[in-house]
Amino acid sequence: MQELKPPIIILNFKTYQLATGGKAVKLAKIAEKISAKRGIYIAVAPQTVDIYRVSKSVKIPVYAQHIDPLLPGRNTGYITAYAVKSSGATGAILNHAEHPLLINQIEEAIRICRENKLITCVCSRTYVSSRSLAVFKPDMVAFEPPELIATDRSVSTTKPESLRMAIEGVKAMDHSIHVLCGAGIRENSDVVAALKLGAEGVLLSSGFVKARNPENFLKKLTEELNV
Amino acid sequence: MQELKPPIIILNFKTYQLATGGKAVKLAKIAEKISAKRGIYIAVAPQTVDIYRVSKSVKIPVYAQHIDPLLPGRNTGYITAYAVKSSGATGAILNHAEHPLLINQIEEAIRICRENKLITCVCSRTYVSSRSLAVFKPDMVAFEPPELIATDRSVSTTKPESLRMAIEGVKAMDHSIHVLCGAGIRENSDVVAALKLGAEGVLLSSGFVKARNPENFLKKLTEELNV
Amino acid sequence: MQELKPPIIILNFKTYQLATGGKAVKLAKIAEKISAKRGIYIAVAPQTVDIYRVSKSVKIPVYAQHIDPLLPGRNTGYITAYAVKSSGATGAILNHAEHPLLINQIEEAIRICRENKLITCVCSRTYVSSRSLAVFKPDMVAFEPPELIATDRSVSTTKPESLRMAIEGVKAMDHSIHVLCGAGIRENSDVVAALKLGAEGVLLSSGFVKARNPENFLKKLTEELNV
Amino acid sequence: MQELKPPIIILNFKTYQLATGGKAVKLAKIAEKISAKRGIYIAVAPQTVDIYRVSKSVKIPVYAQHIDPLLPGRNTGYITAYAVKSSGATGAILNHAEHPLLINQIEEAIRICRENKLITCVCSRTYVSSRSLAVFKPDMVAFEPPELIATDRSVSTTKPESLRMAIEGVKAMDHSIHVLCGAGIRENSDVVAALKLGAEGVLLSSGFVKARNPENFLKKLTEELNV
Repeated sequence: MQELKPPIIILNFKTYQLATGGKAVKLAKIAEKISAKRGIYIAVAPQTVDIYRVSKSVKIPVYAQHIDPLLPGRNTGYITAYAVKSSGATGAILNHAEHPLLINQIEEAIRICRENKLITCVCSRTYVSSRSLAVFKPDMVAFEPPELIATDRSVSTTKPESLRMAIEGVKAMDHSIHVLCGAGIRENSDVVAALKLGAEGVLLSSGFVKARNPENFLKKLTEELNV
Repeated sequence: MQELKPPIIILNFKTYQLATGGKAVKLAKIAEKISAKRGIYIAVAPQTVDIYRVSKSVKIPVYAQHIDPLLPGRNTGYITAYAVKSSGATGAILNHAEHPLLINQIEEAIRICRENKLITCVCSRTYVSSRSLAVFKPDMVAFEPPELIATDRSVSTTKPESLRMAIEGVKAMDHSIHVLCGAGIRENSDVVAALKLGAEGVLLSSGFVKARNPENFLKKLTEELNV
Repeated sequence: MQELKPPIIILNFKTYQLATGGKAVKLAKIAEKISAKRGIYIAVAPQTVDIYRVSKSVKIPVYAQHIDPLLPGRNTGYITAYAVKSSGATGAILNHAEHPLLINQIEEAIRICRENKLITCVCSRTYVSSRSLAVFKPDMVAFEPPELIATDRSVSTTKPESLRMAIEGVKAMDHSIHVLCGAGIRENSDVVAALKLGAEGVLLSSGFVKARNPENFLKKLTEELNV
Repeated sequence: MQELKPPIIILNFKTYQLATGGKAVKLAKIAEKISAKRGIYIAVAPQTVDIYRVSKSVKIPVYAQHIDPLLPGRNTGYITAYAVKSSGATGAILNHAEHPLLINQIEEAIRICRENKLITCVCSRTYVSSRSLAVFKPDMVAFEPPELIATDRSVSTTKPESLRMAIEGVKAMDHSIHVLCGAGIRENSDVVAALKLGAEGVLLSSGFVKARNPENFLKKLTEELNV
């Protein structure tokens, strides 16, 4: 498994039909191929139900899109860190704008993920909350203004000042936390702009999943990112 | 795939460690074996993350423990009927006492499951709500008083009158809906009592999952149920 | 206090600034005046914080917009039936489309309201759920398709068939439950159409609250409804 | 209105029957009397429905127990900062352990309260989250370990080290934020211990509300706190 180091790309499959079941496996293999070609860290976050299938098919990191902050036990229908880890996940996205958590759930989920050796990427909607979330020491904070999600306006080019403040806020709290940005990432220039501002990676979804040619998309997106 | 007809046994694996990953597959194979031996309908409901793995390993029906009433799309971290169906599930438990839903979510989830050809088993906590839920025409209503869940006091022996009223209420609404009961089912006599009262099956979890010998447990539980 | 009998008008103040504090009292007095003039049942549902003030100022029924299904005790920040009753409320709206409840919360809230002698008006979003909710025997079911709320297309003229089925469904379950309709009620003809279809009243909000002249609005709305 | 300065006492009435309606007014008058006698800041937090009545009866600050992070508008049944302010509240408790909020709701609620000139007291369950919440710059952070709420074991004597770390964490973030502690506060010595550790006040509920003689209780509790 590759080491978590910038530039970091996390591909969120959400519940898109184009990224379900066999199609999730296919997209993950594309990500694996580009990851090898570029020598950069690319993780995929398929739906919970596809984690096993995807993690058996690729060697790149597989993240859960969400974890409920619960230990194994009753909890019918919930998603535990223990179970996704057992199925091959090595990380988890938490508090995505589409799946927000209570502040105490976030604290608890990060703790439980750590105990289960799952890397955590906590999403934030504002630069202030990016800093607040850094207090819980996740491995990554991904700053994603909700109003840009699934648009073609990227946070790094549309809100550079907010991104810069998110990065500063997180790093002031704990320099080892990686700051990613998300929402509206469509082109290589969006990623380059993000890295120039000090971000260490990007979280993206529809740009990749819905691309006419996801392989070409990802190849272009990751051009000349590596040093 | 076996036809849905009484007596119906649904085994809910919840998030028990003893029923996760490879252990889920093992328990499902036991269920498959007893289902064949007894000639009765036994479904297993593993965690979402284990649905694919379990459904590839057994021929008995595999149910999701929960479905979010959402169509494929964004919805990061949610569980769609489409995705669990794609992974081999043929049914879903909805509104479990540990995972209650808004009334309009239940209506919507049943509708979406139907479109995805997933059998639905909606849980109710009271005999009155059993009747209310029957209005939405799920395939099954499972009456489970929450205070008996994970105890060794079965609903069929502890609350026979409530169970009878749940059955009457559902059947008055739509005779084709199967009524199951759950909570505290531990012994063959609990199942027999339930069937005598007019129930058409049982939903159980800890009794099976935590049994010292789950195969023996299930064999005994299903003795002489069939006509 | 007037007896609950058709035609029933419930005026939901929501959290509109125009219907807060002193303005809530003023609107309630207008409702009281028209209720007396027309001899019909008009209730007002101000914000929780305005219930005391409004109920001390008028003699018409005052409803809570929402009740949490909880008994007095800890529950910081929640709204109990006991407390709103103590402040003069005589009824409660439950499960409004903007404030949906779990099915077991609805059952419990109706029970607790009944114990506290609060009249209950449960909202439904579909004609099927109208029937389902009738099982819990609230005093009223208000059918409000969410897509019409705060528009100027009324349910009674836009969806007459759905309204008819909601009424039939509820009445088949329990003839004593009053069926109201809501969403998009703006004119006398909307109310007349509703009553002609068999509805026994209307639930409205923005039409009244935001009217240039709420008194004229309500006077016109209630013309020739009474027999 | 008194200035917000230590020692700060906030009395949360929760939904206790003993603190509802006329009884809320009576308790608030006791608090007002002791506040004057001791010359210290004492605020009361009655149920939403009692805010108007209490704030018309006393001159001490009245807080809402909870605010939904919403602007006036539709939002049936929700509690806006605008409305509680209109009824005389001057502050709000947010994120109580019994009423937890999403992290983005907390950020938004603090912002909206500030715009409405409502003082904010945000509750935290752990010392780490106390620090995290301080990032949003509420006026106060109240550290309350949930397992001690409504017990007679006070946080200041049972968990002095956690309290000290909560205080340090908050103050490191912003020295002007007042740190309170809560849960299990029953005696003068609990308050004295809290102040000695650096806390600037206490948040309490059942100790006061359920005291045989609330006036004596509060008189004793506040002995020799002031310098």
